[in-house]
Amino acid sequence: MRELAGLGFDASKRPTKGRPMVLARAKAKRRDAPHVLFYGHYDVQPPDPLNLWTTPPFEPRLVEADSGQRIVARGAADDKGQLMTFVEACRAFGETGVGLPCNVSILFEGEEETGSPSLPGFMADNASELKADIMLVCDTGMWDQQTPAITTMLRGLVLEEVILRGANRDLHSGLYGGPAINPIRVLSRILADLHDSNGAVTLPGFYDGVEELPEEIAAQWRDLNFDESEFLGDVGLSVPAGEAGRGVLEMMWSRPTCDVNGIVGGYIGEGSKTVIPAEASAKVSFRLVEGQDPGRIRKAFRDYVTARLPGDCRAEFTDHSSAPAVALDWNMKPLAAARRALAEEWGKDAVLMGSGASIPIVADFKRTLGLDSLLVGFALDDDNIHSPNEKYDLRSFHKGIRSWARILAALA
Amino acid sequence: MRELAGLGFDASKRPTKGRPMVLARAKAKRRDAPHVLFYGHYDVQPPDPLNLWTTPPFEPRLVEADSGQRIVARGAADDKGQLMTFVEACRAFGETGVGLPCNVSILFEGEEETGSPSLPGFMADNASELKADIMLVCDTGMWDQQTPAITTMLRGLVLEEVILRGANRDLHSGLYGGPAINPIRVLSRILADLHDSNGAVTLPGFYDGVEELPEEIAAQWRDLNFDESEFLGDVGLSVPAGEAGRGVLEMMWSRPTCDVNGIVGGYIGEGSKTVIPAEASAKVSFRLVEGQDPGRIRKAFRDYVTARLPGDCRAEFTDHSSAPAVALDWNMKPLAAARRALAEEWGKDAVLMGSGASIPIVADFKRTLGLDSLLVGFALDDDNIHSPNEKYDLRSFHKGIRSWARILAALA
Repeated sequence: MRELAGLGFDASKRPTKGRPMVLARAKAKRRDAPHVLFYGHYDVQPPDPLNLWTTPPFEPRLVEADSGQRIVARGAADDKGQLMTFVEACRAFGETGVGLPCNVSILFEGEEETGSPSLPGFMADNASELKADIMLVCDTGMWDQQTPAITTMLRGLVLEEVILRGANRDLHSGLYGGPAINPIRVLSRILADLHDSNGAVTLPGFYDGVEELPEEIAAQWRDLNFDESEFLGDVGLSVPAGEAGRGVLEMMWSRPTCDVNGIVGGYIGEGSKTVIPAEASAKVSFRLVEGQDPGRIRKAFRDYVTARLPGDCRAEFTDHSSAPAVALDWNMKPLAAARRALAEEWGKDAVLMGSGASIPIVADFKRTLGLDSLLVGFALDDDNIHSPNEKYDLRSFHKGIRSWARILAALA
Repeated sequence: MRELAGLGFDASKRPTKGRPMVLARAKAKRRDAPHVLFYGHYDVQPPDPLNLWTTPPFEPRLVEADSGQRIVARGAADDKGQLMTFVEACRAFGETGVGLPCNVSILFEGEEETGSPSLPGFMADNASELKADIMLVCDTGMWDQQTPAITTMLRGLVLEEVILRGANRDLHSGLYGGPAINPIRVLSRILADLHDSNGAVTLPGFYDGVEELPEEIAAQWRDLNFDESEFLGDVGLSVPAGEAGRGVLEMMWSRPTCDVNGIVGGYIGEGSKTVIPAEASAKVSFRLVEGQDPGRIRKAFRDYVTARLPGDCRAEFTDHSSAPAVALDWNMKPLAAARRALAEEWGKDAVLMGSGASIPIVADFKRTLGLDSLLVGFALDDDNIHSPNEKYDLRSFHKGIRSWARILAALA
């Protein structure tokens, strides 16, 4: 906070029920400049296991490595080092006398690693103060050491549980095996039929509103020469199991899925028991992409299950929450500006990545404040975030600062 | 044992690792008479809960009821009362001076309620002494109060467990949802496909050797006017879920089935977890009928699963034991004799019942000694076996004795 005040920001610490927020604002030189809200988090993961650190986690050091100097400390990448790239860019505009090209608000929270429990309330309570034209976030990674990246799409999620019930008690399969309905069998049939033989989800209307990637982006992803074998091989797999004819990156980033996350029914102990269970249940989730409505997907699933219930079988559903996908408009001007800026700094086009998982705060900013987020980060795959010996390359730090300076200028 | 010796039997107590066997033999008057081996058990279920007994469980009493006098005590029906019907029939032949029409061996064991652990070994060790032409068992029930029954077929069983494995660890569905194979989905598909839309089992060769009931038996079962609605309604069901076009009795007694007794995979705790599990497993059992070979059914299942495994998916199987079905030849003479005898005593044809579950000792006698068993019993559905206030109708006792006398005469 002091640091930000020293840079000419109007900075304040804002209490929450948890850790305080830091909110800071500074004006651009030009009156009609756009307004950006930068988000970062100052909390970090616990340093355990301590014995695996080669230097004390909370005493940052510059260490020489083959790839150059690196900052080693807990939070060096996630997210202290990254958020400082933006702060230092702001400092540069001040120190060079150029002045900020955009109106800048900065929001740092201290609960990101624990699920940001105070953030939605804080946003709602301070909506007018947090108003901006776009949000900037520096908490993601590069495509590789040479290639910058902007994460432009995050998948949404529908979490659902279904319990199927048959007889009013567990039955002996010697007596009832044959005439009595078996909820495991019914559930298996329903879950099996959720995908067709090409790996597509069969829920009626599931793909309504789902658009194909613009050819430019599709071509960019193809040109990445992503090593599918290595990616799958790392977890012991070799065959992409998603929709036939689509690449692994597409399956993860831009296509919706249906996953069974858990199933249980009947006897699951050691050995065997000849029971026909009274119930069986499954936890089913859907990863959503832009254009899909979580409520409609949930309803489609429930309708689908209900329509397939044989006589004597009842279903009970539980809503374990949902979130829509978040995606930038491919044609939005701030995206074009950021791409231009990153290409100038790195000499390579930024990869427009997707993220298979949601980043809740991005969805929150979109929902509560209507803000799109430009996710630009300079972390690398080998940064050991959340692990011992977390590091941030000095090159990421320096070129990150320059990247933000270029982005702010481009946005203006 | 003393009782049997008093009737002229050569009776002895035979030690086992558990409770002793009682073995007794008496010769028929006629030299060329057939030889029967009668089996019963002298052990009983614990009497708990004691407070629900209206008279002390081990002080047998004659009690008046609307349906006549009954013996109330633990074991009155299961199996002390029942085995005494046979002993008393033997006594009658002696006391009337007629003499036994058959050579009779009697085997009483004391471990039936705990799974007969000593019986197979005892049979093997004393095979020559236990030789007979047929086994008689009195441990089953009547069809109803007026209608005697012979249980002629017992289903067999194959118990199998299958574990499907995909990735080398649980995966996050945000990242891997799409490209990574989900063993739950694979397992669901396999289990679902085990039945066709008519409820028939799809395993290749599953019904090989399975014969339709002789029309005489099928007609008898139809004429029983078995109340399927009441039977299913008792456990909260209303629609027979087995093979289309077959009655509930058929589904339970004379048709093979495939049941999933348990399934588990992924996250099964409270709430949700976006995991793609590394494995999922199911316990699958098959109820078999005469003509099916347990080993072939197990192999057919394993082949079936293996053939359906997509790339990256491996299956591990565990054999949790098996037993073949046991069935009498519909045309065997002792069966015809017993039917004739029971019809004379009760004025009604005996129902030739099946049993959906196996009775291990019957399978053991068949396997070890090659003996077919005639299962004739006089217990009623309201006898409260294994429950407080177990009883045996005096009518069952008296007419049971007469039934055995007639059967022995008919067999000779």
